[in-house]
Amino acid sequence: MNDIRMKTEEAYGASLSMGGLTSEVKKDALRSIADALLQRKEEILEANRKDISIAQEMVEREQISKAVFQRLTLDDVKISNIVDMVNSVAMLPDPVGETTYSMELDDGLELFRVTSPVGVIGFIFESRPDALVQIASLCLKSGNSCLLKGGAEAGYSNKALFGVIRDAASIVPDGWIQLIEARQEVKSLLEMHDLVDLVIPRGSNEFVKYIQDNTKIPVLGHSEGVCHIYVDSEVDLKMALEVCLDSKVQYPAVCNAVDCILIHRDTAETFLPLLVERMRKGGVQLRGGKEIREMVSEGLEPFNEADLGKEYLDYILALRIVNNLEEAVDYINKHGSHHTDAILTGNPANARRFMKLIGSASVFWNASTRFSDGYRYGLGAEVGISTGKIHARGPTGLEGLLSYKYYLKGNGQIVGDYVGKNKREFKHLKTNKKW
Amino acid sequence: MNDIRMKTEEAYGASLSMGGLTSEVKKDALRSIADALLQRKEEILEANRKDISIAQEMVEREQISKAVFQRLTLDDVKISNIVDMVNSVAMLPDPVGETTYSMELDDGLELFRVTSPVGVIGFIFESRPDALVQIASLCLKSGNSCLLKGGAEAGYSNKALFGVIRDAASIVPDGWIQLIEARQEVKSLLEMHDLVDLVIPRGSNEFVKYIQDNTKIPVLGHSEGVCHIYVDSEVDLKMALEVCLDSKVQYPAVCNAVDCILIHRDTAETFLPLLVERMRKGGVQLRGGKEIREMVSEGLEPFNEADLGKEYLDYILALRIVNNLEEAVDYINKHGSHHTDAILTGNPANARRFMKLIGSASVFWNASTRFSDGYRYGLGAEVGISTGKIHARGPTGLEGLLSYKYYLKGNGQIVGDYVGKNKREFKHLKTNKKW
Repeated sequence: MNDIRMKTEEAYGASLSMGGLTSEVKKDALRSIADALLQRKEEILEANRKDISIAQEMVEREQISKAVFQRLTLDDVKISNIVDMVNSVAMLPDPVGETTYSMELDDGLELFRVTSPVGVIGFIFESRPDALVQIASLCLKSGNSCLLKGGAEAGYSNKALFGVIRDAASIVPDGWIQLIEARQEVKSLLEMHDLVDLVIPRGSNEFVKYIQDNTKIPVLGHSEGVCHIYVDSEVDLKMALEVCLDSKVQYPAVCNAVDCILIHRDTAETFLPLLVERMRKGGVQLRGGKEIREMVSEGLEPFNEADLGKEYLDYILALRIVNNLEEAVDYINKHGSHHTDAILTGNPANARRFMKLIGSASVFWNASTRFSDGYRYGLGAEVGISTGKIHARGPTGLEGLLSYKYYLKGNGQIVGDYVGKNKREFKHLKTNKKW
Repeated sequence: MNDIRMKTEEAYGASLSMGGLTSEVKKDALRSIADALLQRKEEILEANRKDISIAQEMVEREQISKAVFQRLTLDDVKISNIVDMVNSVAMLPDPVGETTYSMELDDGLELFRVTSPVGVIGFIFESRPDALVQIASLCLKSGNSCLLKGGAEAGYSNKALFGVIRDAASIVPDGWIQLIEARQEVKSLLEMHDLVDLVIPRGSNEFVKYIQDNTKIPVLGHSEGVCHIYVDSEVDLKMALEVCLDSKVQYPAVCNAVDCILIHRDTAETFLPLLVERMRKGGVQLRGGKEIREMVSEGLEPFNEADLGKEYLDYILALRIVNNLEEAVDYINKHGSHHTDAILTGNPANARRFMKLIGSASVFWNASTRFSDGYRYGLGAEVGISTGKIHARGPTGLEGLLSYKYYLKGNGQIVGDYVGKNKREFKHLKTNKKW
């Protein structure tokens, strides 16, 4: 039996009792982790310095970017932020055991649906070492065992943080947290669909697609975000301008930045020149079809086949004229990636129609597409943005780490009484009782 | 492009607007279907007679069982029941567009999470023709497109029912319902993970496992049910006897029948002889380890390695003595299939501890394991019992056919105001508003 199989079996073994942990035990364990992170700070920073010195050379050889290097670096302030985060997870209400549905099936026969952990979750994430602590804290709070594979650049830091967490959470069943270090172990992990309930990868689209294509384990994945804004006929032009600009230039390299703006024909004449001017000032390269290029005097590049449904992740934006809301909806549903799309309008009926018809995970009315994010949604820490429609969808926090189970409480009821001639009828009375 | 790819693309195309259907349109369409099933009854019965005459020969050649033959046969009463079912689905509240969560992110910036259809769902089901109508009705109500593959024995009946439904629901976007007839088309369907969001197979464990092993599409699957009852130290013996008997003999061929009863050592002396006698009278063959065979004078067969975690689906039952509740929990969590397990006890604290610690989808207290069923749970029609923990778990009704989307309503808010120096803070105030 190889090392990763053993780790996964340990995690599975621990998961069998993780769901039974009391709220107090979980809170105490999280507080111990927070305390230990402070107490063993020097050890963590020492490990981080090893990663940094290797990374420094890689930056010089241009093997990693300066941005990655900065995310990798820990210091007193970052550790203090991590400790605050762990303490804030400790203070959250226990998400396990919450009654989400209750029904009286018959006199004295009561059904409750309560939240429960998913079980064993594999996380494959980037080089930021604080990600490891965040994921581990959320898993402990939600009663899940976790297998953690961080970026190779953060190898020493991750190992140190893992050791601190494992030692400090000694009241939690042994084996609940496992560190995976070798890249080839990820391949083995993806084969263990008998033991692992869910895989959550974070990284490039290609990487997430590779995970999805190579495992039978359900993947809570995040693929591309091709985001649209539709500017309606009745709209406050100033507001529309600011929202469009923010959606593109506030941070163009991310999935929730806008890629294509569709403008109602009646709005185009006044809005288009303003938009083009502001976007150009913002350093955005614009692309459009023949009609729109005739409307704008200069500088628009052609919109080609390759631009259809394209996620730019850059200072590039496609513009398009539409005749009505329905045309915008059809275009977005066909060419978008169902991530985040927005309507800008002063007409509430149009907004509601658009929001109902657009099939995307997030549909906005008069707000920037950049709000599509777990922290901004108030979900607390984000484990990912799911572009699937099964289980969790859109920005995903603690709730995505939960499943549920049914509790049935009776006083000896048997099914035989509810079948055949003279059978008892169920009452099926919806209640608001808590387990 | 092959036939099944075309059907799936049609279903996908329709799904882009299915989520926008009003409650009234869906209700009207379902009522039209109910009416058409009555009006075109002769056509349906004629098709069914063709299936029956082929099936009759297969029964004689012992290629299909009499039970399958009976389920296949339609008559006036069955059609009338089907019509009632469709009308009852029509009258259900619209499950799409329900607000399940709302939060004020900031003044005038409100987030709503509302239910939405999953999209395109592939169903592979058994030979009962009424299953086709039930699945189609639930999909229409939940705004999903569906690809339907029924049993070959019901080929003519399914084709007739499909025609009636498609014609009658002409106000629903064309292509929302597709019939798959050839078995080899299932293989193609399983490859279309770019268009199909979910596959729900019903059939034998082997069949469901085959589906899970051969697709990247999420599968809402049902595998084996290895169910346990733990009879605690403080227990009403008469109640326990009746519940154990019902859990085994009321219908032993199904997944929620009990396979192994664990008895607390203190209860065994009085309870075991009574249980053995009643089970034997019920025609149940009993198996037990050395200790239990010494306690029971005669007729127990040995419990072998192969009986560990075995789903019998027959008049066979394993018995086991345990020293305490924790031992029972450990055994069930390790050897069960996390389907349905029960505790019989007069001690509420023990019941709650057992229910918290057992990781199964359904955990019962003083009730028969046979209650684990969508109809009995009051979920309305059941599309399956999920033994996965992602998305839907346990008996699964209309809710398992839903996903959700986020609506954000603002008045021009931009993310730029919420970052950097002098940034605005989010309010993140949980509300109870409806969209």
